[in-house]
Amino acid sequence: MNVGMVGYKFMGKAHSHAYKDVGMFFDMNADVVMKAICGRDEQGVKDAAAKFGWESYETDWRKLVARPDIDIVDINAPSDAHKEITLGAIANGKHVFCEKPLALNLADGREMLEAAEKAGVKHAVCFNYRFLPAVQLAKQIIDEGRLGDIHHYRATYLQDWLVDPNFPLAWRLKKEVAGSGAHGDLNAHCIDLARFLIGEFDRVIGHNRTFVKERPIPASTTGLSGTASEQMGEVTVDDATGFLADFKNGAMGSFIATRFATGRKNGNTFEIHGSKGTIRWDLERLNELEVYFRDDEPNEAGFRRILVTEGTHKYAGNWWPTGHIIGYEHGFVHIVYEFVQHITEGTPFAPTFLDGVRCQEVLEAVDLSIERGSWVNVSEV
Amino acid sequence: MNVGMVGYKFMGKAHSHAYKDVGMFFDMNADVVMKAICGRDEQGVKDAAAKFGWESYETDWRKLVARPDIDIVDINAPSDAHKEITLGAIANGKHVFCEKPLALNLADGREMLEAAEKAGVKHAVCFNYRFLPAVQLAKQIIDEGRLGDIHHYRATYLQDWLVDPNFPLAWRLKKEVAGSGAHGDLNAHCIDLARFLIGEFDRVIGHNRTFVKERPIPASTTGLSGTASEQMGEVTVDDATGFLADFKNGAMGSFIATRFATGRKNGNTFEIHGSKGTIRWDLERLNELEVYFRDDEPNEAGFRRILVTEGTHKYAGNWWPTGHIIGYEHGFVHIVYEFVQHITEGTPFAPTFLDGVRCQEVLEAVDLSIERGSWVNVSEV
Amino acid sequence: MNVGMVGYKFMGKAHSHAYKDVGMFFDMNADVVMKAICGRDEQGVKDAAAKFGWESYETDWRKLVARPDIDIVDINAPSDAHKEITLGAIANGKHVFCEKPLALNLADGREMLEAAEKAGVKHAVCFNYRFLPAVQLAKQIIDEGRLGDIHHYRATYLQDWLVDPNFPLAWRLKKEVAGSGAHGDLNAHCIDLARFLIGEFDRVIGHNRTFVKERPIPASTTGLSGTASEQMGEVTVDDATGFLADFKNGAMGSFIATRFATGRKNGNTFEIHGSKGTIRWDLERLNELEVYFRDDEPNEAGFRRILVTEGTHKYAGNWWPTGHIIGYEHGFVHIVYEFVQHITEGTPFAPTFLDGVRCQEVLEAVDLSIERGSWVNVSEV
Amino acid sequence: MNVGMVGYKFMGKAHSHAYKDVGMFFDMNADVVMKAICGRDEQGVKDAAAKFGWESYETDWRKLVARPDIDIVDINAPSDAHKEITLGAIANGKHVFCEKPLALNLADGREMLEAAEKAGVKHAVCFNYRFLPAVQLAKQIIDEGRLGDIHHYRATYLQDWLVDPNFPLAWRLKKEVAGSGAHGDLNAHCIDLARFLIGEFDRVIGHNRTFVKERPIPASTTGLSGTASEQMGEVTVDDATGFLADFKNGAMGSFIATRFATGRKNGNTFEIHGSKGTIRWDLERLNELEVYFRDDEPNEAGFRRILVTEGTHKYAGNWWPTGHIIGYEHGFVHIVYEFVQHITEGTPFAPTFLDGVRCQEVLEAVDLSIERGSWVNVSEV
Repeated sequence: MNVGMVGYKFMGKAHSHAYKDVGMFFDMNADVVMKAICGRDEQGVKDAAAKFGWESYETDWRKLVARPDIDIVDINAPSDAHKEITLGAIANGKHVFCEKPLALNLADGREMLEAAEKAGVKHAVCFNYRFLPAVQLAKQIIDEGRLGDIHHYRATYLQDWLVDPNFPLAWRLKKEVAGSGAHGDLNAHCIDLARFLIGEFDRVIGHNRTFVKERPIPASTTGLSGTASEQMGEVTVDDATGFLADFKNGAMGSFIATRFATGRKNGNTFEIHGSKGTIRWDLERLNELEVYFRDDEPNEAGFRRILVTEGTHKYAGNWWPTGHIIGYEHGFVHIVYEFVQHITEGTPFAPTFLDGVRCQEVLEAVDLSIERGSWVNVSEV
Repeated sequence: MNVGMVGYKFMGKAHSHAYKDVGMFFDMNADVVMKAICGRDEQGVKDAAAKFGWESYETDWRKLVARPDIDIVDINAPSDAHKEITLGAIANGKHVFCEKPLALNLADGREMLEAAEKAGVKHAVCFNYRFLPAVQLAKQIIDEGRLGDIHHYRATYLQDWLVDPNFPLAWRLKKEVAGSGAHGDLNAHCIDLARFLIGEFDRVIGHNRTFVKERPIPASTTGLSGTASEQMGEVTVDDATGFLADFKNGAMGSFIATRFATGRKNGNTFEIHGSKGTIRWDLERLNELEVYFRDDEPNEAGFRRILVTEGTHKYAGNWWPTGHIIGYEHGFVHIVYEFVQHITEGTPFAPTFLDGVRCQEVLEAVDLSIERGSWVNVSEV
Repeated sequence: MNVGMVGYKFMGKAHSHAYKDVGMFFDMNADVVMKAICGRDEQGVKDAAAKFGWESYETDWRKLVARPDIDIVDINAPSDAHKEITLGAIANGKHVFCEKPLALNLADGREMLEAAEKAGVKHAVCFNYRFLPAVQLAKQIIDEGRLGDIHHYRATYLQDWLVDPNFPLAWRLKKEVAGSGAHGDLNAHCIDLARFLIGEFDRVIGHNRTFVKERPIPASTTGLSGTASEQMGEVTVDDATGFLADFKNGAMGSFIATRFATGRKNGNTFEIHGSKGTIRWDLERLNELEVYFRDDEPNEAGFRRILVTEGTHKYAGNWWPTGHIIGYEHGFVHIVYEFVQHITEGTPFAPTFLDGVRCQEVLEAVDLSIERGSWVNVSEV
Repeated sequence: MNVGMVGYKFMGKAHSHAYKDVGMFFDMNADVVMKAICGRDEQGVKDAAAKFGWESYETDWRKLVARPDIDIVDINAPSDAHKEITLGAIANGKHVFCEKPLALNLADGREMLEAAEKAGVKHAVCFNYRFLPAVQLAKQIIDEGRLGDIHHYRATYLQDWLVDPNFPLAWRLKKEVAGSGAHGDLNAHCIDLARFLIGEFDRVIGHNRTFVKERPIPASTTGLSGTASEQMGEVTVDDATGFLADFKNGAMGSFIATRFATGRKNGNTFEIHGSKGTIRWDLERLNELEVYFRDDEPNEAGFRRILVTEGTHKYAGNWWPTGHIIGYEHGFVHIVYEFVQHITEGTPFAPTFLDGVRCQEVLEAVDLSIERGSWVNVSEV
C-alpha cells in the first residue's frame, strides 16, 4: 500500500508517524510505504519528506493524486482544500483518508461521499479518538448492554490556547479556510464519539461566542502556535459553541467545545449514564476509563479506574506490557492499521465519509439552531 | 434567639444539628435556644424533640408561629407548606428561615418576599452550600478578580437514587407537594451558586425527562429512602432537567440536574473558566477547591487542589486544625450562624427571600423554554 | 452515663462535641450527660464549660475523679498526666476513656492496664480513626478474606506544621510532656490501624530525625498553632520517624510519620496489598475507600473509589443520605457511642488499654531499633 | 551513527522503536541507522529484523561487535550476558548502550566501567525514566532550589504480575540469569531516580520476601507474559524488597519494589518533601507532575497537577501541542537522542556506567543489610 499525503504540519506529522510505525507494532500482509508527501512550499515539503521519511515529494496535489504508484491519498491540508483534493483523488481511483472535518459544509461533504461511493474507492475520515483503547473499551461495554438504557451523555472539549488575546489570527480562526472554530474543530470529535458510542442525534439547540473579536495577523504559524505581527484582523469563527441534544434513543445530551477553558489543555471528555452503569473518560488521561456498575455489591460499588493497558484490551497488546501507557499519536497508528486492513483484507471499517457527513449534519443543525433561537431537528439540514 | 422549627425529617435533623452546635464553635452574643419543634404526627414530633434536643413540641404550626417565646421560625416542611407557614410567621412578627425552594411557584415566592419586606422581619432561604469554606474561597477568588472575565460556567447536580424503577413514589416525586423534581430540588442549588458566584442570568433554554413514569406508592418514607407498596402511581415531576444559559456578564452556562446519574451520589459541581483562571468544585469532596491561575509560571502552572481547612479559610478555623476535614452538615451551622448574627448584630446577610425569588425566576424561565422550545429571557417571567 | 473530662484544648473540644451529638444520631438506652470538665486554669476551664456545654467544672482532677456523680473519666490532658489521672480514676471505680498515647512509656502503660483490669472498670484508648466508616469497611473486607493473604502494608502519617523553623516549641515538642514527637503522636495511629486491620507486628527497624533542633519558646499555644517569643529552646522529640516492619502473618510493612511533609496536612494513609485485592485510604478524603479486586473481569478491573456514605456502611446510616459526607470529628462520636454501649449494654469493645500497650510496645521497639541500628523483635520490649 | 543491537524481546522492541523514531522528532546532525540486530534464534531474530526495520541480523554477538560498520552496540539481552558482550564491544572500540541492571553484581559492573573508561568509548546505562518530561521538570525544580532542603524521599515500584501463583518461572525469576528479582529490576530504577534527583545514598537497611517459592517451568516466554508447563521450579530471586535509606544530604528515604502489589501495574512513584515544597510523580500518569510550593499564598496553596506537555517542557515540544500526552516508549527516544548527541556533539551525558555501578552499590548494600540484619554503609560494598 503506497501512500501519498497532502499536508505536513501538525496533522502531517501525526499521520507520517502512523505510517512509519504501524508495521512494527501490527501484523499486516501489506507493506505500508511512505511514497510521496505534498505541499505548496517546496523547501518546506522537501524538509518534511526528509524528516518524516517519505520517499519523494510533490508541490502540486494534482500531480500527486495522478501518480500511478500511489494507492491511498491522505489529506490533512487545511479544511478548505479537502473537497477538491478528495474529488481529484477519487477521479484517479485512489482510496482517500481525509482529516476531519470532512468538508467546509454539508453540501460539499455529501458530494464527496457520493463521489467516493460511485467510484467504489475506500474512504475514511480521521476521527482518531475512536481508536484509543479506552474508547474501544467504552464501546464494548456499551454494546454488551452493561450500561443498560442510556439516559445522559455529556461531552466537553476544553482547550485554552485562545485565552491570550495576543494569540495571532491563525488559519484555524478564519471561516473561509477552517469552516468553523471550536465547533467544527472540537465539537466534531465529540459528536463523532457520541454517535460511535450511543447512536444518532435527533434534535439540537445551541449558543456560541467569539470572546476575542480581533487578533494580530500572524507572521507565521505552525501547529497551534504562532508569532504575532502588529496588524489586527477579524476572527470569523466561534471561540466556543455549546449545545443541548436529544438522541434518538431518548438520552439527553450536552456538549461544549471551547478554546477558552483556562487551564484545560486537551479536555476531550465524555460521561455517559445508563440505567445499569456509568462511564467517564478524559483525553488528558487517555489510558484510563472510569466505570461504575450498579450491579456491584452495594457496599463495594464505586467508580473503577481501569488502566486500559492489558493485553486483552483492544490495540493495547500490540504495544507494551500492562501498565506501560501509550500517547496521543497511537490512535493514528490504529486507525491507519484498520483502514489498510479494510482495503487489503476487506475487514469492516468506520468512520467513513458517511460518518463525516453525519457529523457535519449535526454541526450545521447546531449552527442553524443558533440562528433561529430554537431547536432544530437534524433531519432538517 | 429562640427558634421554633416546622419539620423534622432529613432537613429537620440537619437544621437541629446546626442550632445545637453553632454556639460551641462560633462566638455569638446571643444564645441560640431550641425552643420548639412542630410536626403533624404527635408521636413522631415528640420523639424528634427528645432526640434532637428541642425543649417542647407543637403539632399545629399555627400555634408555633403564635408563641411569644419564639423569635425565629424555621420552615423545612415539604415545599407546598412553605408559603402558608411563612406568611403566618411573618404575621406574628417572626424572622423566617425557610428551606429551598422558597415556594411552589414564582407568584407565591414574590408574595412571601413582599410580606417579609413589608413586615420588616429578617428572612433567609437555606441555600446552605454557599456557606461551605471551599465555596466561600471560590467567591473570594472571583471577587478579587483573580479569574478575570468569566467566559464559562458549567454546573451539574448528579444523584442516582431514582435509577431503580422500584424506588417508591415519595413526596418529592409529586408535583403538587414538591412543585418540581430534580429541577426545583437540585438545579435550585446550582442556580443559586451561579448567581452567588458570577451574577445574574439573562436567558435560558432547557429540556427535561421523566424516565420512569410510574412508581410504587410508598408505605412510608423518610429522607431519600422509602419502602414500596404494590400499587403504582404517576410520577408528576421531572427526573432530570438540563439547560443552557447566557449570563448578563456574557458568560455561557450549562446546567444539568438529574436523579439518574448512576454512580454519582451527590455530584453538585461547578467549573468556572475566566480569562485569568479556572475554578472547579465537587460537593462529594466539599473540602477541596481546584484552582488554576494563568499567571503561574508557564512551566509550573497546573490545577491546584486546595484543601480548604486552613485557619485563614472562612469558617474552617472555627472547627479543627488544618487537614481535619468537615462534613455536609457544617454548612448549616454556618448559615445559621450568619442569620443569627444578621438578626442580632445587623451584619449583612444573603441569601434572603429575594434570592429565593431570583432562583425561582430562573427555574420557571427554564420550564417555560421547555414548553416553547426556544430561549426565554428571565426578565419575561 | 455521666462524663467528667480532663482537658479542654483541641482534643477536649473534639471529645465534647462527641458527647454533645452522640445521642442525637445514635439510639442508646443511656443518656450521656456532660457533667464536669476539668483544667488547671480556672478562667479557661470555666469558659470551656460554658462554650462546650458542660454542667460544671473543676480545677483539680483529684476532685473530679472523686465525684460520685461521675461514671466515666475522659482524659485528654497532655500525655505526661495520663497515668496519674487514670490511676486516680480507677481507684475511684470510674470507667476510663483515655487519649492516645496511653502513657509516656510502656512500663506506665502496663501499670495502667493492670490497674484497670484488677479494678474491673471499662477502659478505652481513643484511637478514633478505627471508627470512620471507610476504615470499618476496610476491616470488613479484610475479615471476609476478600484481600486474601496480606503481602504488604504501607502507612504514612504526613503533616507539615513544623516545616516553618519559627513554629514555636509547643508542649508536643518536649519529650518530658509528650513522651515522643511524630512517632508517638502519629505513628501511634498508624500502628493501631495496622494491628486493627491485619494483626500483630513481629519485628521492626527504624530511623528518625529532628530536622530543626531549636525553636522559639512559645508565649502561648492552642491546638497545633502558637505564637513565638524570642527565646530559643531545644526540641527533644523526633520530627519524623520511619520504620520497616515484619508482621506475624508474613506481611512486609513500612511506616513513616513526619511533621515535615510540606503540603500534606493530615496524610494518615494506608495501602494494603493482598493476594486477592488491594485497599487504599487517606484521612484527607476520609469518606472514600479505594479497593481493587483481582477477581473482577480482567478487562474491567480497576481501583474502585467507594464513597462510604451508604446506609449499609457502618455508622454512615446514622448521619445523612448517601453522598453527604461526614468530617473528622464524627469518628469521636462513633467511639464514644461504642464505649458507652460497651459499659451499659456489655457489647464488645476495642481498643482498650491492652491495645494502648500493644501500640506502645511497637513504638518502643522502634526506638530501641534506632538505638541499636538493627532489627528488634517486639516481644523483646 | 550505525547501531548494532543484541536482544529483540520487550526491551529490543522499545529500543528499536527509539532508533526508528528519534530522527523524525529530534534535530540531529547524525543519521541513526538501524544496521544490525542480533539474537541466538535465527528465525526469531530474522523476523524481528524485518518487523522492527533493521538492515541485517546476526546470530552471534561476537560477530556483531566485530563488524566495522557498527558504531554503537546496544545490549538488551538478559542480564547475565551484559558483561561479556560489553567487554567484547569495548574491545572492538564500540560505544556501548547497555540495559539496566548494568551487571549481575558489583564486581562485574566495576570491571565494565573500568574497561570503558580505559578504552575511551562512550557508555550509557538505560535508565530511561530520567528522560521523561515530568521527571526532567522535577529535576529542574529541585536544582533551582525550589524545594529547599530535602527532608524525605519515598519511592515505590509496584507491579502485580507475580500475584498469580501459576505465573510461570520466567528468566527474570532465576538468579543466575537475572541476578535479582524485584530488587534489581525495579528498585534499580528507583535508586537511579533518587540519585538523579537528590543525590547519593549514605546507608541502608532492608528486608525482602519470596512469597511464592515454586512456579511452573515455562514452555516459552516473551516480555512479562508466558505460558506454563506442568513441571515446577524454584524461584531464586526476591518477589519484593523494601528498604530504608539515609542520604548524604540528611534526607530520610524509603523504598519498596514488589511484583505482588495487586492492582498496581507500573507504579513507579516518588514523593519528595523539601523545606520549601513537595513533588510527587507516578509512572502510570507519566505526563503529570504534582508540585506544592510553600511560598504560594497560604489560602491558595495546594498540590498543582502540572500536565508536562508544554512546548517549554524538556522534550515535550518535540512531540505534539500542549495537552497531547506521550507514552512509555518516548523516554527511550529521548535517551537515545541524548546518547547520540553525546557521541557526535560531545554534549554531556548521564547515566553512564558509573551510574550503573553506583546503583549496583546501593542494591548490594541493601542485600548485605538483609543478610546482617543491620544498617550497611554504601561505602562498605
